[in-house]
Amino acid sequence: MTTIKDSVHDHIEVEGVAADLLDTPPVQRLRRIKQLGTVALVYPSANHTRFEHSLGVFHLADRALDHLGIAGQRADRVRAAAVLHDVGHSPYSHNVEGVVARRTGKEHDDVDELVTEGRVAAVLDDHDIDPEEVAALIRGDGELAQLVAGELDVDRMDYLVRDAHHTGVPYGTIDHGRLVRELTFIDGDLVLDEGNVQTAESLLLARALMNPTVYSHHVARISKSMLRRGTEALLNTTEIDAEQLRRMDDHELSVALRTHDASREFGRRLAERDLYKRAVWAEMGDVSDALLDADHDEIREFEREVAEDAGVDSDAVILDVPGKPSMRESTTGVLVGGEVRRLDEQSTLVRALQVAQREQWRLGVYAPEPHLEAVGHAAERVLGLETDGALISDVNTPGRYASLTEFE
Amino acid sequence: MTTIKDSVHDHIEVEGVAADLLDTPPVQRLRRIKQLGTVALVYPSANHTRFEHSLGVFHLADRALDHLGIAGQRADRVRAAAVLHDVGHSPYSHNVEGVVARRTGKEHDDVDELVTEGRVAAVLDDHDIDPEEVAALIRGDGELAQLVAGELDVDRMDYLVRDAHHTGVPYGTIDHGRLVRELTFIDGDLVLDEGNVQTAESLLLARALMNPTVYSHHVARISKSMLRRGTEALLNTTEIDAEQLRRMDDHELSVALRTHDASREFGRRLAERDLYKRAVWAEMGDVSDALLDADHDEIREFEREVAEDAGVDSDAVILDVPGKPSMRESTTGVLVGGEVRRLDEQSTLVRALQVAQREQWRLGVYAPEPHLEAVGHAAERVLGLETDGALISDVNTPGRYASLTEFE
Amino acid sequence: MTTIKDSVHDHIEVEGVAADLLDTPPVQRLRRIKQLGTVALVYPSANHTRFEHSLGVFHLADRALDHLGIAGQRADRVRAAAVLHDVGHSPYSHNVEGVVARRTGKEHDDVDELVTEGRVAAVLDDHDIDPEEVAALIRGDGELAQLVAGELDVDRMDYLVRDAHHTGVPYGTIDHGRLVRELTFIDGDLVLDEGNVQTAESLLLARALMNPTVYSHHVARISKSMLRRGTEALLNTTEIDAEQLRRMDDHELSVALRTHDASREFGRRLAERDLYKRAVWAEMGDVSDALLDADHDEIREFEREVAEDAGVDSDAVILDVPGKPSMRESTTGVLVGGEVRRLDEQSTLVRALQVAQREQWRLGVYAPEPHLEAVGHAAERVLGLETDGALISDVNTPGRYASLTEFE
Amino acid sequence: MTTIKDSVHDHIEVEGVAADLLDTPPVQRLRRIKQLGTVALVYPSANHTRFEHSLGVFHLADRALDHLGIAGQRADRVRAAAVLHDVGHSPYSHNVEGVVARRTGKEHDDVDELVTEGRVAAVLDDHDIDPEEVAALIRGDGELAQLVAGELDVDRMDYLVRDAHHTGVPYGTIDHGRLVRELTFIDGDLVLDEGNVQTAESLLLARALMNPTVYSHHVARISKSMLRRGTEALLNTTEIDAEQLRRMDDHELSVALRTHDASREFGRRLAERDLYKRAVWAEMGDVSDALLDADHDEIREFEREVAEDAGVDSDAVILDVPGKPSMRESTTGVLVGGEVRRLDEQSTLVRALQVAQREQWRLGVYAPEPHLEAVGHAAERVLGLETDGALISDVNTPGRYASLTEFE
Repeated sequence: MTTIKDSVHDHIEVEGVAADLLDTPPVQRLRRIKQLGTVALVYPSANHTRFEHSLGVFHLADRALDHLGIAGQRADRVRAAAVLHDVGHSPYSHNVEGVVARRTGKEHDDVDELVTEGRVAAVLDDHDIDPEEVAALIRGDGELAQLVAGELDVDRMDYLVRDAHHTGVPYGTIDHGRLVRELTFIDGDLVLDEGNVQTAESLLLARALMNPTVYSHHVARISKSMLRRGTEALLNTTEIDAEQLRRMDDHELSVALRTHDASREFGRRLAERDLYKRAVWAEMGDVSDALLDADHDEIREFEREVAEDAGVDSDAVILDVPGKPSMRESTTGVLVGGEVRRLDEQSTLVRALQVAQREQWRLGVYAPEPHLEAVGHAAERVLGLETDGALISDVNTPGRYASLTEFE
Repeated sequence: MTTIKDSVHDHIEVEGVAADLLDTPPVQRLRRIKQLGTVALVYPSANHTRFEHSLGVFHLADRALDHLGIAGQRADRVRAAAVLHDVGHSPYSHNVEGVVARRTGKEHDDVDELVTEGRVAAVLDDHDIDPEEVAALIRGDGELAQLVAGELDVDRMDYLVRDAHHTGVPYGTIDHGRLVRELTFIDGDLVLDEGNVQTAESLLLARALMNPTVYSHHVARISKSMLRRGTEALLNTTEIDAEQLRRMDDHELSVALRTHDASREFGRRLAERDLYKRAVWAEMGDVSDALLDADHDEIREFEREVAEDAGVDSDAVILDVPGKPSMRESTTGVLVGGEVRRLDEQSTLVRALQVAQREQWRLGVYAPEPHLEAVGHAAERVLGLETDGALISDVNTPGRYASLTEFE
Repeated sequence: MTTIKDSVHDHIEVEGVAADLLDTPPVQRLRRIKQLGTVALVYPSANHTRFEHSLGVFHLADRALDHLGIAGQRADRVRAAAVLHDVGHSPYSHNVEGVVARRTGKEHDDVDELVTEGRVAAVLDDHDIDPEEVAALIRGDGELAQLVAGELDVDRMDYLVRDAHHTGVPYGTIDHGRLVRELTFIDGDLVLDEGNVQTAESLLLARALMNPTVYSHHVARISKSMLRRGTEALLNTTEIDAEQLRRMDDHELSVALRTHDASREFGRRLAERDLYKRAVWAEMGDVSDALLDADHDEIREFEREVAEDAGVDSDAVILDVPGKPSMRESTTGVLVGGEVRRLDEQSTLVRALQVAQREQWRLGVYAPEPHLEAVGHAAERVLGLETDGALISDVNTPGRYASLTEFE
Repeated sequence: MTTIKDSVHDHIEVEGVAADLLDTPPVQRLRRIKQLGTVALVYPSANHTRFEHSLGVFHLADRALDHLGIAGQRADRVRAAAVLHDVGHSPYSHNVEGVVARRTGKEHDDVDELVTEGRVAAVLDDHDIDPEEVAALIRGDGELAQLVAGELDVDRMDYLVRDAHHTGVPYGTIDHGRLVRELTFIDGDLVLDEGNVQTAESLLLARALMNPTVYSHHVARISKSMLRRGTEALLNTTEIDAEQLRRMDDHELSVALRTHDASREFGRRLAERDLYKRAVWAEMGDVSDALLDADHDEIREFEREVAEDAGVDSDAVILDVPGKPSMRESTTGVLVGGEVRRLDEQSTLVRALQVAQREQWRLGVYAPEPHLEAVGHAAERVLGLETDGALISDVNTPGRYASLTEFE
């Protein structure tokens, strides 16, 4: 038995297959992948990694299995999946995941060749665990997959608490001890036990509050967009391909960006926190359907048009159109009076969260400070934003949280 | 006024010269230098950086200046020094500082050219602050330097609490709020006010407990030694020189180690946490004076002799001889009955700490696992350790905290 | 300057009128009044008092005044009001406030004679502060009263965080540091500055989650109802009158209940946590308007009828009809695009909270365990509950959090 | 299974005999006994009770039993002893323990008739546990008693962390999770496993730092002395006898003190925090052996003589002579190189603690403020203190932490 000290869960005890998996290179690589990518440019303490998060997910999965009375090989498969669930992440976690997926077709939960080959597969074999089954759990296939890749999974329980601890933003402080204790399987579905509508609501509310304040903070979005643009330049102009990129860690991508000509300026700006600013920040109602549904190539085309209209280099315009909000967790099941009910049917608050998410949605157009006004007006024209100039505006006016700052 | 959220001090308010300095490249670089270097290989949550620490030091300095009633340019110089006090750090903080110092003659607090040139100097000039005076404060010259580079400085108040928060080891949890409030100047000396003998003791005890558990944990020492060895190989065999190395960040050094032939194996081992283990772990009483006083070249020579005796490659032997313990803080002044007294004269506990430090001292000889026994016996012979075989031993026997683990 | 160590805000600095007021008997009495009354029977660590809460409210008021740039006598009046705002509380805080108010006409914020007479008035006089003006602030009169008795007051910022700290329920962990920094006066109204819709939402969501889990936990409501019933018996059968009761502390009421014949059984049950259980737990839709609007006398009459119908002693039936939910804070003002907007107009979530509160509302009928079934059926008949037996039910079936327990 | 939320250990799971014991009146009474007695007059948040502490001790005992592999009836007896270990406490915990012991011969760990009779005995019988054996464990008899009443017991692990949490003083924040995991039995002795000398030191250092700052803070000592004096007056002049007193809770004693003539003034002073101050505060070296060894009657005689000499009422002089320091824990066993060693033989720091305790020892003479000088001089004469006036002094001079304050 190995005991590991964690800043969130204190002592985590690891043994068997989980302990052996920790020692493999694909898991050790997660030590060099920040959990929140560019969010550290907003909250300077947010340097925690996918490695410690994976340990936390293992720990909560282990506790949940214990409470659910699941043991033996079935449980060990889940423990292995918990340790391994993030090995498919590209550098900077979700930040360049789309770049990789467009070129390889693989999302971060597609871990087949990482898990079924090499050291990881060898460790799983040693413990008589079928790597394919572990990969399936990570993909979300199978009843027990709900524990590590479902609506009520321990993944999000760990990250909310951990992100709160490391950013200093308290909203993510859920009662994970209670959530883990209250999980139960009913007819193959993982649901929360009787009396836990509020427990479930608290999980969704925590995420809803962390979202604009942390995960989608505009400075994190701006720097993420710059990171993506630099990474694409790297893939387009060097020998690095998307499969290689996918196996890099943050250190390697950070250095590569600063080394190669095509990405050097983005690399420097990110390293020195010399970031673009918002030229446009528009609500969903002001954005055309064509823009909302645009794919990657169309968005790049829009960027070029805006740049041309504004008379600036095409690298000086970034158009950031987030996907339409969804809230998968709202279908979480909760036992009420002996019956499983969907949380969004049971809870007025959860239904409101779905509306609130749309209200929080923002399209962004970013540019270097000297070009802000030109790019803003060009974007309004080219993208047909119905803003009457109102949105191309003073969002960057120095305010309490303005200038250089973490809350910029 | 900019407000930055910190995981330790919550909201930190920054303005004026301090805010402008945060935006300079030398300070932003500190985001990519881990506060505790290889300690993260023992405590996986310990990924905090010199950047957030510098913010914390600024914050405590600001509070202390306020309590001491120091304002104006004098105070601004101290604030600038607080923000800048760590810009001279090499990658991985103290881990390769010795390597750099041997070749450049510069320790981490020698920041003259970093502070008196370029963007930093320009910012200081804008605020009518003399860069030379700030560099002097960081070096420890001048009365107010005691606040940021003295026995009772806010540097250590911040790092003890921050390291405790991020490792999860509670011993560093001092009462920094009280310490900052109780500082006072008497005849030019910064001392603790009446009634604070215990407050002072608590600061020293916290460090004494953090030392073996965190800062000098043997796994941190082993990986630090491997990092140093790899870095020396890099400097010896590539175009990278010590001045360049000094300006690198952790990302660059980590990638450089893995890229170049001479350091690749050390780079891989560190990245995969495939570490050497202890072949010898010896108390001070068992070590000859010649060994205790050996300089860098002599130690390298010892390593070669041990390797030869053991019949292994010279890279397979690392000899780690820490400096003799000192405890500068024990001369901290405390007001007792209206008179300034030295803490070590006043406190039995503090005097005991000085003895305890010698007792905790250990010499280490490290080697890859297959060569442990051979290297251990060879080291005993070559170094003349008086161990009767007792120390070359079962230190690596799998135990509660053994195998792969964080507490290995 | 006096520095007081607080478990929530760490060091609190007090001086001037606030420091002198702390020393008066009416404020010291708050050391013996639990902040959450009978909630300690659910959460055993919730023994914090109105005294430490008052210190916390003073501290946040002091910080807010500082950020708002309010100083001098105006500020001192607010500081005095912060320290004194709870001196009007009866024992067990809000638990028996209704009992007192029915007989004296005084709510807890009616502090006129406590503030304008005796030691408190003398201290205020010494500092040239008009006691009448302080009493007015506590009552909520005047612009600055919004800081201590308004929709955005520091009272609730302190209690949410403090109650979370002491119960261990994390939902109340708001970012009070940010809230205090973002307060601003616009045309005489205290509102949150630009960019703080989510900050405001988080405050209301925190309370919405703390409510069912902590403040209105059914075991806290049952024991509060028993405390009220015992206290009424005490007032009806002994020489203790409501004015005396109002000046008692928890210790005195607890002893009085156990000493006098008419209240002894309730006193013993509360002391031994031998509590009534739920015979009925009905949603608002199942309750007639007559019952919803019933006054105290009518409710007592209902209780007698239920008891008669069930064939039990009238002390064996407690009918607990909470007031209709309101949410004053939903009118909180927030600056959006330079204009003050009402939070409930701006926020979908806040509007949903108003609905959710009605959904969480429950009418309770409580009885000793042996009479549960008889009282439940009688209540259904007498109160005309439209439950088809569904609500008089297994709410007390031993479950995960059932039997004796804190979460009963 | 019952789950109880605790502010220190989060979720505590209780079942079987432990759950049933929690429901008994002697255990519920502990809800009304403050863990730290009059320390709350120094640290206003320190209102935690023996009840929550007993839950915490149960929790840590349960974890330790699990780690030690002890199960069945043997383990249940220890769990019962953990829940019950403090039922013998008088009101205000240790504060009036001496008063009770002088008159009844019973210390707080003498719980025979509380455990072997009534409800508690009935619960134990139901679970086939012999009450005598539980009483023996609490007294410290038997191998497993070391877990709940020994040098390394979980009692002190809980109270250090809990007292730190509630006072806000961080020094008690030990790593209880590690301590509990590292316990092991060697030849019938409970010791810490290999590699834990520092873990053991940290436990003792934590207590050594909490002692002067919290447990023996002079304001806590003054109020404790006043509480004792008032309680003795109560026993001497009313029908209340020591056996009754022993069964009271804090509420009852607080009310009794304020109700009866002989104790009313002490009761009022404690309720209003209108405390005596220090007339003398003398180090051990300045105190004669006769005084050091004086028994209760001799001390009362000294008080009368001092009062007479000073020309004040005998109630206006309190002489407080603490027992000579001992440090039982210094004999804690730790495994070093496979052998059990005594901690004080192994650790320089622990030996220093024994000296430091003597240095921290202080004799106090307390009096109402107007009589301070007269009583101080009289005490010097009567008690033969070798102070040359130095100690009867300015200890009460208003300072930073002076006037009314918590750190008075």
